[in-house]
Amino acid sequence: MTSLTFQLPPLFDYFATFLWALSGAIVGMHKRYDMAGVCVIALLAATGGSTLRDGLFLNQLPPVLTDVWYVPLILLAALVVQFFRQRIAGMRLIDNLINLIDAIGVPAFAVVGMQLSLAARIPIPGVVLIGMVNGFGGGILRDLMVGDTPAVLKPGRFYLSAAFVACILFVVLEVYLHVAATIAAWIVIGLFFTIRALAVRYDWRTQPVLPDTEPR
Amino acid sequence: MTSLTFQLPPLFDYFATFLWALSGAIVGMHKRYDMAGVCVIALLAATGGSTLRDGLFLNQLPPVLTDVWYVPLILLAALVVQFFRQRIAGMRLIDNLINLIDAIGVPAFAVVGMQLSLAARIPIPGVVLIGMVNGFGGGILRDLMVGDTPAVLKPGRFYLSAAFVACILFVVLEVYLHVAATIAAWIVIGLFFTIRALAVRYDWRTQPVLPDTEPR
Amino acid sequence: MTSLTFQLPPLFDYFATFLWALSGAIVGMHKRYDMAGVCVIALLAATGGSTLRDGLFLNQLPPVLTDVWYVPLILLAALVVQFFRQRIAGMRLIDNLINLIDAIGVPAFAVVGMQLSLAARIPIPGVVLIGMVNGFGGGILRDLMVGDTPAVLKPGRFYLSAAFVACILFVVLEVYLHVAATIAAWIVIGLFFTIRALAVRYDWRTQPVLPDTEPR
Repeated sequence: MTSLTFQLPPLFDYFATFLWALSGAIVGMHKRYDMAGVCVIALLAATGGSTLRDGLFLNQLPPVLTDVWYVPLILLAALVVQFFRQRIAGMRLIDNLINLIDAIGVPAFAVVGMQLSLAARIPIPGVVLIGMVNGFGGGILRDLMVGDTPAVLKPGRFYLSAAFVACILFVVLEVYLHVAATIAAWIVIGLFFTIRALAVRYDWRTQPVLPDTEPR
Repeated sequence: MTSLTFQLPPLFDYFATFLWALSGAIVGMHKRYDMAGVCVIALLAATGGSTLRDGLFLNQLPPVLTDVWYVPLILLAALVVQFFRQRIAGMRLIDNLINLIDAIGVPAFAVVGMQLSLAARIPIPGVVLIGMVNGFGGGILRDLMVGDTPAVLKPGRFYLSAAFVACILFVVLEVYLHVAATIAAWIVIGLFFTIRALAVRYDWRTQPVLPDTEPR
Repeated sequence: MTSLTFQLPPLFDYFATFLWALSGAIVGMHKRYDMAGVCVIALLAATGGSTLRDGLFLNQLPPVLTDVWYVPLILLAALVVQFFRQRIAGMRLIDNLINLIDAIGVPAFAVVGMQLSLAARIPIPGVVLIGMVNGFGGGILRDLMVGDTPAVLKPGRFYLSAAFVACILFVVLEVYLHVAATIAAWIVIGLFFTIRALAVRYDWRTQPVLPDTEPR
């Protein structure tokens, strides 16, 4: 851990975790779960990516176990959703808020995962894979648990591909061009945010591999 | 492992594993799976919680690999269900039996998970989390594998919340009040069993976070 | 790793991984995912089994991280499907091709998993379990991710049971009869292939544990 030259600032990490938990709690609320179910979905959304990264790939204790603030933060997010449930249920902008969380949270967590993998001397393709798992794992587990097809798999969102390009850029910058890790991280977060913002602004959409021959 | 002061008696552990496998086999039977499919669901229900605990969180070999009796016990449970399939399919009390299994099995496995986590020096919130994963993991994986939304997430059952309270009580008793681990374990199992029995007896139900404004 | 006396030849391993990735990419294409979604399903199908084996059970780095060829191979499979999408969509023989891939790939990966488990001194029932996880894990994760019930659980395919018999035979041959590992491996692959071919040829089908009393 001492060789890591980039760490998200702890407050930023907690803030992102809280926002991801909020997104999970909102999904659970819309599924008509009770408070306990809402907490479970919030927990999955906020810590699923880092738990898959550490538990399945890197064989180390995931931060949800070692950092005492994660579980309380997630309970807090569930309580916030419980308290403002009527206002959130009536919101139209909630999707925009969640998109904004994602546009910052996905690359930030992806960079953390890639840093940890580089420190563990994983080969380059594995580093990119762990970046993707860390960035998207929480959202995918959240969707699977509530019985939805993971949103990121569906066409119409410029999401996985933007993150894949951003992850490769990070590895190129840091491993081959020896850019300082902190600078590489912010470039990557900025790039992903810009691609996503442009995709929403100009309505760029990905196409299914197999186009429909008849209207759906 | 030497620092553990509470272990479920091995026969109790095998008995609980067998009952959980039975519950999984019954679910698989009702889904019209063949014998092999029934065995897979029984295996998931009986060992999913401990496998997630050890494989994903604590990074040690899960007991399904190291204990030679688990796989034969699960095959036995599947054979029992195969043999009594007509009687089980016609039973009305089968849900009560499964509820009874759960009311004993969930807190017992939760306590085992918390003991292992305390021995691994996991911080307190992580200990409670592993208790929940160990207690509920098998049932959740069973439900996801057969394509159902996990039953514990839905309102109407006093289940996750009772276990959460019981897990916190166990940690308070053992870590802060220094109660002997065996006594703490039985108190917690008794508390969970009592809450569940009262909830069924007096029809206590949890409410969705977002109440319906119109009848479903 | 030095005590392993059987390893799939690397080219065979890459070939099988490529074919599994192809099967995942075809499933993703039929679900109307975009290129990024197709790559995710191809990755799950090709590396899910070995990742569960190493990440969840054996606590070592999964090969998708340590072998630099896996991620590029999977991207290549997705590109092949993208390029030949019209031809694949119109094919009638594609199910036969996928069945052929499975009939070779499942026992081959199962044998690799059992070899690694024996080397890790896992007890016999655990060895058989890891063989099954390694052989079927990728296909099950692929099906769960796209929202289908895993195909292997449904009656009508002689699949899990043939693999279970083959895995037990491998352990008997190698551990109790001290047959050379390479020979045992090819016997097991041949047996599984033969059972599957006979099951398709003579239309052998497994039955649900609970038979229907009325026509479906």
